[in-house]
Amino acid sequence: MGNVGQTDLHDLNEPIINHSEGQLFLSEAFKIIVEEVLCKGTDVNEKVCQWKEPEELAALLDLELRETGEPQHQLLQRIKDVAKYSIKTSHPRFFNQQFGGVDYHSLAGRFLSETLNTNLFTYEVAPVFILMESEVLRGLRLLVGWTHGDGLFCPGGSTSNMYAMNLARYQLFPEVKSQGLWGLPRLAIFTSPESHYSVKKGAAFLGIGTDNVILVKVDDGGRMIPEDLDEKIKQAKSQGAVPFLVSCTSGTTVQGAFDPLDHIADVCEKHKLWMHVDAAWGGSVLFSKQHRHLMKGVDRANSVAWNPHKMLVAGLQCSVLLLRDTTNLLKQCHSANATYLFQQDKFYDVNLDVGDKSVQCSRKVDCLKLWLMWKAVGSSGLAERVDKAFVNVRYLTEKMKKREGFQILREPEFVNLCFWYIPPMNCLDHTPVIKERMMKQGSMMVGYQPLGNKVNFFRVVVFSPLLSTKDLDFFLNEIERLGNDM
Amino acid sequence: MGNVGQTDLHDLNEPIINHSEGQLFLSEAFKIIVEEVLCKGTDVNEKVCQWKEPEELAALLDLELRETGEPQHQLLQRIKDVAKYSIKTSHPRFFNQQFGGVDYHSLAGRFLSETLNTNLFTYEVAPVFILMESEVLRGLRLLVGWTHGDGLFCPGGSTSNMYAMNLARYQLFPEVKSQGLWGLPRLAIFTSPESHYSVKKGAAFLGIGTDNVILVKVDDGGRMIPEDLDEKIKQAKSQGAVPFLVSCTSGTTVQGAFDPLDHIADVCEKHKLWMHVDAAWGGSVLFSKQHRHLMKGVDRANSVAWNPHKMLVAGLQCSVLLLRDTTNLLKQCHSANATYLFQQDKFYDVNLDVGDKSVQCSRKVDCLKLWLMWKAVGSSGLAERVDKAFVNVRYLTEKMKKREGFQILREPEFVNLCFWYIPPMNCLDHTPVIKERMMKQGSMMVGYQPLGNKVNFFRVVVFSPLLSTKDLDFFLNEIERLGNDM
Ligand SMILES: Cc1ncc(COP(=O)(O)O)c(C=O)c1O
Ligand SMILES: Cc1ncc(COP(=O)(O)O)c(C=O)c1O
Repeated sequence: MGNVGQTDLHDLNEPIINHSEGQLFLSEAFKIIVEEVLCKGTDVNEKVCQWKEPEELAALLDLELRETGEPQHQLLQRIKDVAKYSIKTSHPRFFNQQFGGVDYHSLAGRFLSETLNTNLFTYEVAPVFILMESEVLRGLRLLVGWTHGDGLFCPGGSTSNMYAMNLARYQLFPEVKSQGLWGLPRLAIFTSPESHYSVKKGAAFLGIGTDNVILVKVDDGGRMIPEDLDEKIKQAKSQGAVPFLVSCTSGTTVQGAFDPLDHIADVCEKHKLWMHVDAAWGGSVLFSKQHRHLMKGVDRANSVAWNPHKMLVAGLQCSVLLLRDTTNLLKQCHSANATYLFQQDKFYDVNLDVGDKSVQCSRKVDCLKLWLMWKAVGSSGLAERVDKAFVNVRYLTEKMKKREGFQILREPEFVNLCFWYIPPMNCLDHTPVIKERMMKQGSMMVGYQPLGNKVNFFRVVVFSPLLSTKDLDFFLNEIERLGNDM
Repeated sequence: MGNVGQTDLHDLNEPIINHSEGQLFLSEAFKIIVEEVLCKGTDVNEKVCQWKEPEELAALLDLELRETGEPQHQLLQRIKDVAKYSIKTSHPRFFNQQFGGVDYHSLAGRFLSETLNTNLFTYEVAPVFILMESEVLRGLRLLVGWTHGDGLFCPGGSTSNMYAMNLARYQLFPEVKSQGLWGLPRLAIFTSPESHYSVKKGAAFLGIGTDNVILVKVDDGGRMIPEDLDEKIKQAKSQGAVPFLVSCTSGTTVQGAFDPLDHIADVCEKHKLWMHVDAAWGGSVLFSKQHRHLMKGVDRANSVAWNPHKMLVAGLQCSVLLLRDTTNLLKQCHSANATYLFQQDKFYDVNLDVGDKSVQCSRKVDCLKLWLMWKAVGSSGLAERVDKAFVNVRYLTEKMKKREGFQILREPEFVNLCFWYIPPMNCLDHTPVIKERMMKQGSMMVGYQPLGNKVNFFRVVVFSPLLSTKDLDFFLNEIERLGNDM
């Protein structure tokens, strides 16, 4: 194979990339990807991670960028190396994050999106995806219980949460868009201490400030207490603040708790506040007839953030903001009417040009992968994934209860199971030690954290459609094995 | 091939996705993608777009999401349909946007990123990419002229611009993070009327307000006038505002103008303002020995936004924010210290966990595609692409000057060429008419817009490494043909 990147002798009036050489390279790369990431990377006889210290890894990868290019065979070797030393997030023993696993239809959709390389701002450059995004949003909104509304794919749930804040603020005080916050009274946001940190990040970014995020008490299960919410709202008002948004969580990050939406909706209605539901993690229960009751009352919210890249295995990133609004608030709040993109004298209906609803300009096509996966397995197939996850977590919980040394934090409400493993040779804080061994041996990955006054515990999340009970048994045995080595 | 998505009979204790069936599907999809998007999609004998009215297209695509899944052959047909009706942005006759073309090394990197499906927040889940991102940022910073500094890949240049605003604000008033804007004096941002609309969007989103974005006059070429900047800053101060940021542009969206950075740096120093350079479009000139003078003075800036997904053909999205700062401002400004991700008792150097520098939580791996492409052609190969683009725009300009009916707006400073085509049978505003015909025939795509008091003109951007002078001749002939049909 020649060197596609050879640079010395090109006639600059001619193309300097060769399609057939390029396509050959891509085919070779595709084979490596399938072999290394999809076959080996999901094989239980292979490691989840090849732990290397940063200095060693940097040396192995030879990351430096140089003046001249490299031959094709060397580039293919680089692809192998990147695959080799990367974490195998599709591996059945990867329990570390709220994403993982692999769905092949979604992956095909991702390859297609990448190759089509377009931008979701105008019907002109993305006719298929403008219509598709709208249909996928409609499908998700119907699950929330809204026959009408609006929405957008965002680069992550954190961004969706920020959008909700900005919309709520704009609805109450439209002048904020032009004048900023100075003319306004101090605004206040309400959320639980177990909500995702993006609520605070968003408040800081939007100029509201983290001090104006008021934390509402939670019950033993980590669920927001509506009575305390009511109390805190009154208190804030009495201190001269203007409450404008409650950010509830459906499926908290650590414990997987569902805030009681119906009761919170009552409080929001009473005080006329925007009700946002951060269902980035838990939203997928809406597919399941059996489990959707966890989000009862969600249809009373003003906005919902939901990440199909988590539980539905749609692939990073796939994240939507759904709105009940039918007054075009999203566009009014975010539009800048740039004439180079959003000309009003176009020959088609310019309402199709949704780009101005976003604070991004170029915006990735994140709908295709979800659409294709949904077409492939249907709503019933997605429901099944959710049901399976609950079956798995139940299995794991029951087994854990019967085993010496395991202590669960509480009965899981969702697919997060938080637990300690206390080795026979007790030491003070063993969780990080077990974790270090796990990583260095590469056998498995699971996350840990402290919470309030509770010392470090593991949080295992079991949602991948690729899991079997064998993997869960392995999980338990492996924790024991690593812990007992102390 | 069986139906991977068949859902009725699954044992939920077992995996419900089959790897070998899935991999077979992916291979079939890959073949279609290569054939339809990369072969046909770049063939000059094929159309750039298959124009359909929205209703017709929606019907053709059968977008609706249903309860049950579909068989594999039907899903493969759907992939074909999506490809067929999507815009061929890699086609040599796609001149419509500041992205387009295809680089096969980058594309291979994108497939690999998608398959590895990880998140750029911790060394734990992204060891390779944490190190790689840092190296790519270092390489880009060196081109700016900084041996030290910081930075981050962001989901687009608009986000990079917002980050710069937030950092500048935080540096001046760190209390904004906790207290919001209420305690602060009214802040003011300075930019030219030809800057990208994301500056205004960002100001609105951050609670600063679009009225506090003060527009500085430009010269005939669309470049900010430093004397007017100085004037406007003084004026704002006298009206009680606190100027804190100047957002210059290197390569404006429409005209491709470069603001005089060195002179602006003098003004910023004098008034102690944060100097941000929005080089989303123009930044790539830094690779070229011949053209990097356009950004002279950029090393005096505090931050630079640069989108390799535009001129360097790295693929959407690939967008960096570069910082001169060495005090960890990015992390201080954005961190939330979530204990479930950023535990401080980890067994490795937690400074590698860069996720808390971002306001996102999950963040896509956008560095690999650029790294692989850079490794493939070297800095010299990327420089060559920039030089080629300038050669192409010169060619097009000279030809246009010699042809009847073409009138250029001004001599291009960069690779944007703005022009009118005035058909012999003159009509009032023919640009949108030519555009409509072009789209409906699908022969070519180029954007248009008005500017100030100038009526609609075309903006052609020529940067794709896949272009030949034949394509440029075609462009001229086609504009003539479409225009003369009136
Ligand atoms: C409850 C919750 N909300 C929001 C997020 C943030 O989503 P993203 O990572 O897509 O920004 C997460 C991610 O872990 C989450 O668990
Ligand atoms: C000068 C300039 N800045 C910023 C942007 C926005 O970049 P993005 O689309 O990646 O948000 C653009 C895009 O056209 C641009 O031309």
